[in-house]
Amino acid sequence: MNESLKNVKAMTFDVFGTVVDWRSSISREVQQILSNQGVELNPDEFADEWRAGYGPSMNKVRTGQLPWMKIDDLHRIILDELLKSYQIDQLTEKEKVFLNHAWHRLDPWPDSVKGLTMLKKNYVISTLSNGNVSLLVNMAKFGGLPWDTILSAELCNHYKPDNEAYLSTSQFLGFPIEEIMMVAAHKGDLSAAKKNGMATAYIPRPMEFGPDTQVDNNDEDYIDIVAKDLPDLASQIDKIRT
Amino acid sequence: MNESLKNVKAMTFDVFGTVVDWRSSISREVQQILSNQGVELNPDEFADEWRAGYGPSMNKVRTGQLPWMKIDDLHRIILDELLKSYQIDQLTEKEKVFLNHAWHRLDPWPDSVKGLTMLKKNYVISTLSNGNVSLLVNMAKFGGLPWDTILSAELCNHYKPDNEAYLSTSQFLGFPIEEIMMVAAHKGDLSAAKKNGMATAYIPRPMEFGPDTQVDNNDEDYIDIVAKDLPDLASQIDKIRT
Repeated sequence: MNESLKNVKAMTFDVFGTVVDWRSSISREVQQILSNQGVELNPDEFADEWRAGYGPSMNKVRTGQLPWMKIDDLHRIILDELLKSYQIDQLTEKEKVFLNHAWHRLDPWPDSVKGLTMLKKNYVISTLSNGNVSLLVNMAKFGGLPWDTILSAELCNHYKPDNEAYLSTSQFLGFPIEEIMMVAAHKGDLSAAKKNGMATAYIPRPMEFGPDTQVDNNDEDYIDIVAKDLPDLASQIDKIRT
Repeated sequence: MNESLKNVKAMTFDVFGTVVDWRSSISREVQQILSNQGVELNPDEFADEWRAGYGPSMNKVRTGQLPWMKIDDLHRIILDELLKSYQIDQLTEKEKVFLNHAWHRLDPWPDSVKGLTMLKKNYVISTLSNGNVSLLVNMAKFGGLPWDTILSAELCNHYKPDNEAYLSTSQFLGFPIEEIMMVAAHKGDLSAAKKNGMATAYIPRPMEFGPDTQVDNNDEDYIDIVAKDLPDLASQIDKIRT
């Protein structure tokens, strides 16, 4: 175990997939909203396609093909394309806004609130998400996530895995970057965090993409801790501290 | 009573003086830290002088005489000048850093945690302070302040009463500016908030500057609600909602 982990003062969390179960939440809302409209579709597939548009659209912002735009706006662009391809044209503007805000109403994984509450006793806990601030604030109120504060790509106009996003945690939380731990279910996020000097914890989420999720359990030199869920992370890091 | 207050979705709070009692907290820490060093002084006066340097130093940033600098750094510049004028030269750098961070360890007014907890049920509650993010996060953990998120001048590099600080609440919280209420013990803050379209609540704090505080109880057309403390604000606004 890495001795320097004793110095960790704050933890920043990826949110979509790591703390909340976006897929079943979006699927449920798509089912409710669109079946009220008499639309028949596979809501899990619709959720997967919506999510699949997310990385490419952020990359357009990251590479300058699109100007800075928050996730709510990117989600809406993808949604409008999806509705078109599904030939769903009966939603009012108000209904589309409500459906787009389904991303503000994602359920936490069953262990998340318990684990964050444990970690909050000894650490500053914050989001570090590509979601915009209002999305993350509304989600926290919806799911009871006890964040100390909300950090977001929106605060530095750089999406992860841009370096600026990780470095902003040190500026805003006031700790040296090596005293901040990035917690995520995605190795690319942790690799970029470590490159910028952060400590890292990997929480594989075997249901993120539904029953067919491919979990990558290989060891990586950029991962300091692997935990099965957030309470397990709290237990492991408590042992390191004492 | 203003009907439009029914539409309020979020409240942003001034912090120093409105939510926390900076004067007695700073006085206590100055007493503890400097009397350990054998220094004799009036700690209330020292606290008042430290605070008195705050407005002028922010104004230097607001007018471009100083580059953007966070409050921790402004507090430190003022502290160094005070230590010099008091001829206190025995503090180590580590002790100076600790003393400067006394501003991260301010006690809430006795009603603050109760009032914020009541308001949090129906509103997004956030700071809107000139304090930097880490100062506000540490203070919230120290005093148990249940913020949904931390908004700060640091997030837009503009100190209140610059318009940008007030307008940033709408950008980050995702509500129209008129659905956000600024809560403060200082009329200048509320006047600027109203000019930018916010709802306003005035909470006079008759002990902010100690027993000699001059409370201004005059009505103002830019103030929507006057409340004696935060639970009173929660009660009044609950009556408006229902």
